[in-house]
Amino acid sequence: MTYCLGIRLEDGLVLASDSRTNAGVDRVSLVCKMQLFEDQGQRVLALLSAGNLATTQAVASLLSQRMRTGAPGDLCLAATGFDAAQVVGDTLREVIARDGDYVRPYGDPDASFLLGGQILGESPRIFQVYSAGNFIEATHDTPFLQIGETKYGKPILDRMIQEGTSLTRASKCALLSMDATIRSNLSVAPPIDLLCYRRDSLCARVHRRFDEGDDYLEALSTTYAQRLEELFEALPDCPDLDEVSDAALAPVGEGVAPTGPL
Amino acid sequence: MTYCLGIRLEDGLVLASDSRTNAGVDRVSLVCKMQLFEDQGQRVLALLSAGNLATTQAVASLLSQRMRTGAPGDLCLAATGFDAAQVVGDTLREVIARDGDYVRPYGDPDASFLLGGQILGESPRIFQVYSAGNFIEATHDTPFLQIGETKYGKPILDRMIQEGTSLTRASKCALLSMDATIRSNLSVAPPIDLLCYRRDSLCARVHRRFDEGDDYLEALSTTYAQRLEELFEALPDCPDLDEVSDAALAPVGEGVAPTGPL
Repeated sequence: MTYCLGIRLEDGLVLASDSRTNAGVDRVSLVCKMQLFEDQGQRVLALLSAGNLATTQAVASLLSQRMRTGAPGDLCLAATGFDAAQVVGDTLREVIARDGDYVRPYGDPDASFLLGGQILGESPRIFQVYSAGNFIEATHDTPFLQIGETKYGKPILDRMIQEGTSLTRASKCALLSMDATIRSNLSVAPPIDLLCYRRDSLCARVHRRFDEGDDYLEALSTTYAQRLEELFEALPDCPDLDEVSDAALAPVGEGVAPTGPL
Repeated sequence: MTYCLGIRLEDGLVLASDSRTNAGVDRVSLVCKMQLFEDQGQRVLALLSAGNLATTQAVASLLSQRMRTGAPGDLCLAATGFDAAQVVGDTLREVIARDGDYVRPYGDPDASFLLGGQILGESPRIFQVYSAGNFIEATHDTPFLQIGETKYGKPILDRMIQEGTSLTRASKCALLSMDATIRSNLSVAPPIDLLCYRRDSLCARVHRRFDEGDDYLEALSTTYAQRLEELFEALPDCPDLDEVSDAALAPVGEGVAPTGPL
């Protein structure tokens, strides 16, 4: 699996991805899941990918080959983030149309993407491109988007991220969200790629790769774990747990909606 | 959806379930997902359920009707927790055999269960019964089992729960795990049923229902959120994020395992 994350803030964008890839139990490897498409001063676009590696690499390779060609599929021709997301969706459809039927007997050919960045004249935007090639966009109400193994790392984001959160604070939160996922799921692992994009810089200057054992990442993870344990310890215990409760649990058959899922 | 959780400790068991049930967007209701099968001094078994409500209620009703009958499917005949889990699995298969083909055109008839408790002569045990009727058991290395919407609430358990954790501490952790899930997922909601079973008591004395707005639950949730925010604020910021990084992100096509999933 994979975990990729994009956060849209007033000050810019924070994008993060892990590096674990596997094809069956006997093939576990590392691969960078963040590709940059940059035309300094004009556009910065980062593509984060999850799903079948042959598919995601084919999409990234085609997008890369077509940059600055002026031909269809050239991300430099996209006048808006929306247009760029359409180019990614179209390229994904092209790859699936070519390879999908051949791959399905062996496994799932699908892939999904986060496309985050800024094109001159627009604000920074983040899109989540689905396997079908359609996409949604991060908004004021939904400041972050995730793909892959998304759930373990969502509670910390739900608590800490608002649109007004600073880039530094959001970067710290993105790394903690990665840390929670890595702890709870073997299929997500460092190195973690972090891109911290400042609004209107139109240049992806600030990206960092955090390797396994990186000093800051280790310190963050260890300190967080220790202090969380202290915090947990200090929280009040449930007062009634040593008393006998007279309240019976609901008897069988008292429920409602007898044909629906729980 | 649903979130149910069972923790196996040296001192006993902690079991918790939410109460949200829905059948489509226009039917969202509450139902208790924890049923007790008790024969004081002999056995205490709690059944926590997720999945199709008609299926889970049918299984619980059949198990209830058959208690103390001496007929097949009587949980009082089960000499061990393993035997009791087999009775639950068999009863689930019986319900699916009867209703499955009729229900599938309308939706998924499947269900899964946690069965936790103690039978005289044994230690407390917890089993997770799959839709297929087979099951796994919580062990020394895997002290908790979850069904339903399990991922949001797993990181806090991974951090805080060991076999030696006290019942009080594990109860607090179970409620925080529920809190994280409720915050991140609309389909899980209070009341929360909590059963705190002390080893060898053979009596399910200590259960509590936490309604929406319960004083302790509110205080726990609010205090945790505030202190977590303070903790987060106090963690060190990533030092290099304001510097220009020369490390390029991996170029397209550098990855490995070209046919595998990310």
